[in-house]
Amino acid sequence: MLKNDLILRAARGEKVERTPIWLMRQAGRILPEYREVRAKMGGFKELVESPEFACEVTIQPVDHLGVDAAIIFSDILVIPEAMGLPYEMVEKRGPWFEKTIQSASDIERLKVAEADDVRYTIDAISLTKKELDGRVPLIGFAGAPWTIFSYMIEGSGSKTFSKAKKFLYTEPKLAHQLLEKITKSTINYLKGQIAAGADMVQIFDSWAGILSPDQYREFALKYIAQICDAIDEVPITVFAKGAYFVRKELGELNCNTIGLDWNMDVAESRVLIGPSKTLQGNLDPCVLYAEDEVIVEKAQEMLKAFGPQRHIANLGHGVYPDIDPRKVKLFVDTVKEFRF
Amino acid sequence: MLKNDLILRAARGEKVERTPIWLMRQAGRILPEYREVRAKMGGFKELVESPEFACEVTIQPVDHLGVDAAIIFSDILVIPEAMGLPYEMVEKRGPWFEKTIQSASDIERLKVAEADDVRYTIDAISLTKKELDGRVPLIGFAGAPWTIFSYMIEGSGSKTFSKAKKFLYTEPKLAHQLLEKITKSTINYLKGQIAAGADMVQIFDSWAGILSPDQYREFALKYIAQICDAIDEVPITVFAKGAYFVRKELGELNCNTIGLDWNMDVAESRVLIGPSKTLQGNLDPCVLYAEDEVIVEKAQEMLKAFGPQRHIANLGHGVYPDIDPRKVKLFVDTVKEFRF
Repeated sequence: MLKNDLILRAARGEKVERTPIWLMRQAGRILPEYREVRAKMGGFKELVESPEFACEVTIQPVDHLGVDAAIIFSDILVIPEAMGLPYEMVEKRGPWFEKTIQSASDIERLKVAEADDVRYTIDAISLTKKELDGRVPLIGFAGAPWTIFSYMIEGSGSKTFSKAKKFLYTEPKLAHQLLEKITKSTINYLKGQIAAGADMVQIFDSWAGILSPDQYREFALKYIAQICDAIDEVPITVFAKGAYFVRKELGELNCNTIGLDWNMDVAESRVLIGPSKTLQGNLDPCVLYAEDEVIVEKAQEMLKAFGPQRHIANLGHGVYPDIDPRKVKLFVDTVKEFRF
Repeated sequence: MLKNDLILRAARGEKVERTPIWLMRQAGRILPEYREVRAKMGGFKELVESPEFACEVTIQPVDHLGVDAAIIFSDILVIPEAMGLPYEMVEKRGPWFEKTIQSASDIERLKVAEADDVRYTIDAISLTKKELDGRVPLIGFAGAPWTIFSYMIEGSGSKTFSKAKKFLYTEPKLAHQLLEKITKSTINYLKGQIAAGADMVQIFDSWAGILSPDQYREFALKYIAQICDAIDEVPITVFAKGAYFVRKELGELNCNTIGLDWNMDVAESRVLIGPSKTLQGNLDPCVLYAEDEVIVEKAQEMLKAFGPQRHIANLGHGVYPDIDPRKVKLFVDTVKEFRF
């Protein structure tokens, strides 16, 4: 049914003719086509909550960049909102929560979200799946429990996430209660995405690198493992940015693919993670600011470092919004044209 | 002459009776005594530029926390200013530069700073050295060239430092020219600090973790190595936050001590760095938010992980300003009372 299933085959460790590629944050501000639609539509959240818009911008990078997968246009913070903590996206400042979690009763008041509580994204997936018509696989996603937890405690982004970390140290039992509720909600949500047509899902642990190795094992990895164990319908990718210190443990997760950020040495990561996972990544997103020759050279270096199989090419972080889309396309084309 | 030289002996790998301790950012907002003096004095920069004030707050943590070293109250950004790029410290937002470096002529216009261009800090060191009267060693410091470079290009703090990284990719030759000027200025400055009485110096590479391993080797490590090679008067510590991927190379620097952040596993770091360096760190700064028992337990765990020799206890990052000074003192006391 899928005309291009390279990414799914790479994720499952099946042989591929060439390395597939998609980009984190490919649907969004880098594309003039996105900015055009968005200018008509209003705030970021209205866009996330409109299945038609989400569908349109999800497909744009498939049309304009030629990537091998679409990823549904949404936000990891739909889960806290579905659980009872609404957020706003403040222009140039990022997410902001009016209420945050401070106490046991705050946690009790939260509901375990069902996929239906994020109906707009589920609908966007059904619609996109239909519109894509099998051209490429559609990736669903959710935030990892620790990253979602940190926003629910902190109420916004932070350089140190010290409030969230403080909560782990001072209220470990409550922290686990909250993480369990988030984990259950996330499993429900991802299962809903898969039922609606997602061919693959990715868990984003954006703030993984903030925790100490011990804390990461206790408060983060354990819940990612629960999600991986609960999902067996489609391939799963885990991207724990900055969590270099648990690469060995990431390799033991019941998932298919581990995302690497640009700090992580490819050969070392392969040794730590082992041969049975596909690796995703990990070009430094800033390479796309460079001259064309440098982009081609660095992209090819990266491909050689990963080797011809069990690799999904990507950046080591979301694409930065001020990157020239022509440069992004050059990266995509370089990967697609490369042969070992 | 020094009544307590534990830190210097630990840095040189000589035997110590107990593990010495100091804290990054120990002189500053955590202490009510600092906030009291500061309330009378005005902005942060005026304080940095007043030798009497800098001396007073440098000695406060020795009096009130009982640490085994003082570190001169100053800022890494005095170097860009001495080179010709003045900065302001904006309350709650951090540093801000009116002019930034964009072109070859911008770099040509910069001077190589002499220690005398940062006279106020040199004077603060002389004065503090006298006032300390040999109670504990006095640590001098500077930013690492890459971190200073990133502020000079970016003009302020940043989540991604993408302008600075873009400059490395698009203008590598100019980047090296600027890094060389910064390196020369830093050597002059550190030599001036040592001549004025600094017993030990630390190089802070705060944004080390932003670069890819290749970029770190080419644009950062090389210049840190030049500084280490130029300074042989006193022990040097290199703290490259987030640069876990070059720990082996850090172990080959001509310095005495390598600082570890709280993400870095102690045993693994020892293997990578080798036996001939003292290690400094690395308690998660957020542990100091925890209950007393947790602080004691985590501090003792840390001490055991490092072992009795070649360790200088510290946090894995600067102490956060809202930590209760009583908790900081508990950490210091726990280290000082511990015996292997």
